[in-house]
Amino acid sequence: MEKTRPKVVIIGAGFGGLWAARTLAHHPVDVVVIDRNNYHTFLALLYQVAAAELDAEDIAYPVRSVFWKIPNINFILAHARRIDLQNRQIETDAETLSYDYLILANGSVTSTFGVPGVEEYTYFLKTLEEAVALKNHIICCFEAASREMDEKRRKAFLTFVIVGGGATGVEYSGALTELIHGPLVKDYPTIDFSEVRIILLEAAGYLVAPMPADIRGYTADQLQKMGVDVRMNAAVAEVTPGKVFLKVTETDPHSQARRERFHDPNQTGKVDRGHETVPYTGSRGKENIETNTVVWTAGVKGEALAAASGIPVTRDGRVAVLDNLQIPEHPEIYVIGDLASIQDASRALPMVAQVAIQSGVRAAKNVLCQIAGKLPQSFRYADRGSMIAIGRKAAGVAIGKFTFKGFFAWVMWLVIHLFNLIGFRNRVMVLTNWAWDYLLYERAVRYVFPARMPAGSKSGSCAAPDRDHHHS
Amino acid sequence: MEKTRPKVVIIGAGFGGLWAARTLAHHPVDVVVIDRNNYHTFLALLYQVAAAELDAEDIAYPVRSVFWKIPNINFILAHARRIDLQNRQIETDAETLSYDYLILANGSVTSTFGVPGVEEYTYFLKTLEEAVALKNHIICCFEAASREMDEKRRKAFLTFVIVGGGATGVEYSGALTELIHGPLVKDYPTIDFSEVRIILLEAAGYLVAPMPADIRGYTADQLQKMGVDVRMNAAVAEVTPGKVFLKVTETDPHSQARRERFHDPNQTGKVDRGHETVPYTGSRGKENIETNTVVWTAGVKGEALAAASGIPVTRDGRVAVLDNLQIPEHPEIYVIGDLASIQDASRALPMVAQVAIQSGVRAAKNVLCQIAGKLPQSFRYADRGSMIAIGRKAAGVAIGKFTFKGFFAWVMWLVIHLFNLIGFRNRVMVLTNWAWDYLLYERAVRYVFPARMPAGSKSGSCAAPDRDHHHS
Repeated sequence: MEKTRPKVVIIGAGFGGLWAARTLAHHPVDVVVIDRNNYHTFLALLYQVAAAELDAEDIAYPVRSVFWKIPNINFILAHARRIDLQNRQIETDAETLSYDYLILANGSVTSTFGVPGVEEYTYFLKTLEEAVALKNHIICCFEAASREMDEKRRKAFLTFVIVGGGATGVEYSGALTELIHGPLVKDYPTIDFSEVRIILLEAAGYLVAPMPADIRGYTADQLQKMGVDVRMNAAVAEVTPGKVFLKVTETDPHSQARRERFHDPNQTGKVDRGHETVPYTGSRGKENIETNTVVWTAGVKGEALAAASGIPVTRDGRVAVLDNLQIPEHPEIYVIGDLASIQDASRALPMVAQVAIQSGVRAAKNVLCQIAGKLPQSFRYADRGSMIAIGRKAAGVAIGKFTFKGFFAWVMWLVIHLFNLIGFRNRVMVLTNWAWDYLLYERAVRYVFPARMPAGSKSGSCAAPDRDHHHS
Repeated sequence: MEKTRPKVVIIGAGFGGLWAARTLAHHPVDVVVIDRNNYHTFLALLYQVAAAELDAEDIAYPVRSVFWKIPNINFILAHARRIDLQNRQIETDAETLSYDYLILANGSVTSTFGVPGVEEYTYFLKTLEEAVALKNHIICCFEAASREMDEKRRKAFLTFVIVGGGATGVEYSGALTELIHGPLVKDYPTIDFSEVRIILLEAAGYLVAPMPADIRGYTADQLQKMGVDVRMNAAVAEVTPGKVFLKVTETDPHSQARRERFHDPNQTGKVDRGHETVPYTGSRGKENIETNTVVWTAGVKGEALAAASGIPVTRDGRVAVLDNLQIPEHPEIYVIGDLASIQDASRALPMVAQVAIQSGVRAAKNVLCQIAGKLPQSFRYADRGSMIAIGRKAAGVAIGKFTFKGFFAWVMWLVIHLFNLIGFRNRVMVLTNWAWDYLLYERAVRYVFPARMPAGSKSGSCAAPDRDHHHS
């Protein structure tokens, strides 16, 4: 490497990091991208991997392929442990790297908010490994239920609790319901599927908070029509092996009425909740649900590297950046994407792919500005709208003041997600799997593979699905 | 289940077990298929998963899907531990099953022949988990080599030793060479690919023993043209962390001459072997190769269940069956596929899919014969030929007295393997990946995922590829 060329290190190969790197391609800088995986993950479809709809490989793309024809970009597979801000060096588990400019694109990780038991006894849905582990666990629950004679234990295997009514929780609830009441019904002829419960717990009074009110309502209605037991104002107090304890605000009659309505949406009286609701009078909450599966999608926080390196972070571990995406007192460091807490005009920008992409491009351009002796420019976010898929033929799309719901929105969702996948092969693969799913009502990838995921799992077999797993 | 219907248990959902089950479909018997995985694996393409050519999911098929419309067949996901021959019961890790008839289709597992270090320090290629672990390890070797400054250590990362010149060893050598000298050259611009060595060790004086002589010769010639260092009469004495020790028959001048020829096939003198051949005078052999990657495909033996249950087995752990596939003294037990040692007229039948399928069908028909009070019939194997793929556009096919080599044979190989995959979706997926590979010279699935495979691996990161792994 020539000494005279500035060295730009980008930590993270998500959308933000990749777009920052692409913006620097063929410019007179030496770029190094670091990631702990050798693939980029298309996180928007992660829930479909966890619902046995897509192969893990379909939503991953080799980072090195992105840079095949770009000689000034190198990739290093490593985990960045600490940034030495004074000496401008990054310590990794492989080697120590120096930088002239640094773009932090580490993204976000799951936050448990310190709720007891969440770290130990729930499944996360934020990485490809976690999605595959969750999928394997779901299939194992049905294998176990198919031979469990004890009704109480069998119902615990067939009760699935998803915590968090944001996009991930909503999309996974819908996809899981379609998996269970579609292909799995055919797989397990001896199971009584009226014993299956899928419960979505949301601490607030509505789902998908960032969406307009009509899409929020549509989302809740659709999920209930699909058979998901949607419970608002239901915050989790504690998770123990086999149980979720709820905090319920009994003093709010409105939310109470709302909860009642969601319990039995069709007022048919058919939904028997007796087997899984037990009065509880301890400090953890009034109510508990017996289940072997708790999926925690309720919170995210900034990845730990910034805080561990002494960069000031907000309460949720993110870095409050300047208008130009630099951090205060370190004009050589930019923070983008989920890790950046960005105030745009009146609001804080959401943690979505478009913010990551656009802030990545802006940060890279600002590095080039600095090198050229020009002033870095402020970041302006162009909101292209947001969307949520609830299930087959049901989605919500908000663009500016317009909202779309139902089949047309679902087709928009399909097209836009397919278009945003990196790599033509991945598009073919995803399209093929979607065709199987949506046309043939079949989920092709219902494998428990690898059988020992996640690392640290105590059970190598499906005989007893493992609740007490460790997150990787 | 009705008491009056005989219960047939089939252990193993490979080709033999599935075809036996299908033969019993809709007959007045209750069939239970047991397998430790919930998917069938198309083992003929396993080496392509280990060469980053196919997704693991592409060659797997959910067993329950096979039986969707067959009410008299049930599947149990369990590991059979022991058969109680007297009481006709099978102990599994989940429950105990009784049977009236038993079809053993457990297949074969890797045999180390007791060679020291093979169990601990080599990669196997017999299960989907092993194939994925090997693929991850290969990519990690290149990641490590790309930042290793020490020449000796770097060359050990770039030296790949495949032991066993049977179909698996030959096909994997070819596929690995094409992976490395194709996509990986583009992935790692800083690596000097003249440091890469791919060495195929075969203890006998020829490759692919069951094939006709002209295909054997063609196979060795093709591999050498592709850059594989093919060494005949090279048996492994011991494997240690970082080294393979060879036994070489120095007293056989013919084999010695042959070895020399293979060392430098083009007699160009370009191949520098100095860095990896070290004189060795201990008891383990005269020669050793420094490498971080030893793939052991040299031997198979019958799966352990039969021997563990007191059924007499041959030296290689297989069950010598009667003409009608029953075992002596137990007319209610049939053994099929790889686990069965079947003598047909003059020869022992090979451990291939066609033998498994045909013996599975025969065993199932014989069970129906017994139930109908008729005599079970002898098994007659209809040899449909055999084939081997060496690489892109190079294969050998033997059908009866005819042999085909080269491009035409390769097209036959492609068509027949695609046709034999179970499930139309898997065919689409495999065809798409092959198109990428063969037309675009791209391997789409070069992911290190899951990063912690195999279970028990000590290294969660690619920084130091793990040699001291445990087989699952």
